[in-house]
Amino acid sequence: MAQPIGIFDSGVGGLTVAAAIKKHLPDESFIYFGDTRHSPYGDKSRDTIQTYSTEITEFLLDQNCKAIVIACNTASALAYKKLISKFSEVPIVNVIDPVVDYVAENAKGKVGIIATRATTQSGIYKKSLLAKKPKLNVVTAATPLLVGIAEEDFTHTDISRGAIRAYLDNDKFRSLSSLILGCTHFPLFQTELESFYQGKTEVVDSPELVAHHLKAVLVDHKINNKSKGAKVNYQFYVSEKTKAFTKIARNFFGEDITLTEKVLS
Amino acid sequence: MAQPIGIFDSGVGGLTVAAAIKKHLPDESFIYFGDTRHSPYGDKSRDTIQTYSTEITEFLLDQNCKAIVIACNTASALAYKKLISKFSEVPIVNVIDPVVDYVAENAKGKVGIIATRATTQSGIYKKSLLAKKPKLNVVTAATPLLVGIAEEDFTHTDISRGAIRAYLDNDKFRSLSSLILGCTHFPLFQTELESFYQGKTEVVDSPELVAHHLKAVLVDHKINNKSKGAKVNYQFYVSEKTKAFTKIARNFFGEDITLTEKVLS
Repeated sequence: MAQPIGIFDSGVGGLTVAAAIKKHLPDESFIYFGDTRHSPYGDKSRDTIQTYSTEITEFLLDQNCKAIVIACNTASALAYKKLISKFSEVPIVNVIDPVVDYVAENAKGKVGIIATRATTQSGIYKKSLLAKKPKLNVVTAATPLLVGIAEEDFTHTDISRGAIRAYLDNDKFRSLSSLILGCTHFPLFQTELESFYQGKTEVVDSPELVAHHLKAVLVDHKINNKSKGAKVNYQFYVSEKTKAFTKIARNFFGEDITLTEKVLS
Repeated sequence: MAQPIGIFDSGVGGLTVAAAIKKHLPDESFIYFGDTRHSPYGDKSRDTIQTYSTEITEFLLDQNCKAIVIACNTASALAYKKLISKFSEVPIVNVIDPVVDYVAENAKGKVGIIATRATTQSGIYKKSLLAKKPKLNVVTAATPLLVGIAEEDFTHTDISRGAIRAYLDNDKFRSLSSLILGCTHFPLFQTELESFYQGKTEVVDSPELVAHHLKAVLVDHKINNKSKGAKVNYQFYVSEKTKAFTKIARNFFGEDITLTEKVLS
């Protein structure tokens, strides 16, 4: 069996990234770890998030992973630098940089960012965008109810449409060139957000950008799986398994999956 | 200054109970403690919740409180017995028993309970009701999105109406005699739930029942404040203060309040 890619998140939201990796890198196997026992990371300290991220990366490397994807905005913001300095033996990809690179290069006007309250307060997307393109007009909003709506499988209902209007139907978020979804749950609203903006705003497909970036990194490091049509294998671990997580996981990955409980510490 | 009542919750939801105490016991002062740093309690272990609840009760007793109200469903379920055995010097009231007593006595037919996922899984309301009235028909549902809707101030919108329909417009929850709101956030949906049931279901007013029970307990212990029209004082502590909590607190208490940050451990 070829070496798998390791993917981790504070919960099951990162499965939207895993789904994009499955779609765009069909010859790669992966192991997903969702730290559901400690979810959400957003209200925890930098030290705590670095400790959890390190433990999970060690677990994934023990499983022979050849590359790591931090499929979590909070861990990408707070633990990426720590992980690349500690685990220099494998390439590590986060979910923020590929999106920032793409938008800084392609945005034609105002850029909107929606995220959880913790990610919004961290200012990570705005700071990174302005570091690359100082004159960019960037607006941000915390849209925490979208997390619950995605987890409760209430997308494409009056509830999701009402929440999108409540958060975005205002001058600040009108006439955007690009909208960045700064939470791994939000790709579930991709088509509803495109409809809300009547196709005039690019709703940036973060999971796809991350998958494409990962592909380039694997090729660069000459560790992409070259046997086309090879048998691939997907494994899904969570640090706490409940019925609710199993149901949510299916919605996020787009198909039925089996979660295995694995407590790391 | 007469001795105050101590009220605590894992967050700011318990302010709905504090508001009812203000309304129904206008001569009593109180100190509220919201453990926002550790919120929500729902996903924490019994030991952890007992430790937090003990620390908070000690703090409230240090502030000279004459009675304690556990204005949190999770702490009421998991820490009440511990607290009454440890702090026998003051009466302690929880938010579950007064509601269970009332409904077991007054329900004429099927009883519905809505709560967070953690409270629903604990089965506390159902077990307590059946212990008092074994033949009662009791149905339960986890309605976690209502927590976020209340915190985001989206009550009385398409979002709240959509969520109420999504959760309750089904055979299981039709034709209820009584609906118990097993989460301190849910009184914010009182009138919307009454409208949904077209006035045919009693949406039990838990904060009012708790306030009335507290009143009886104070009189029983001869510690109610007997100086009518006395100057009262309300203090609000949280273990972590953010802008978001300040805004949410106003919605839950029904008027502007000042939160003071106080870290206990």
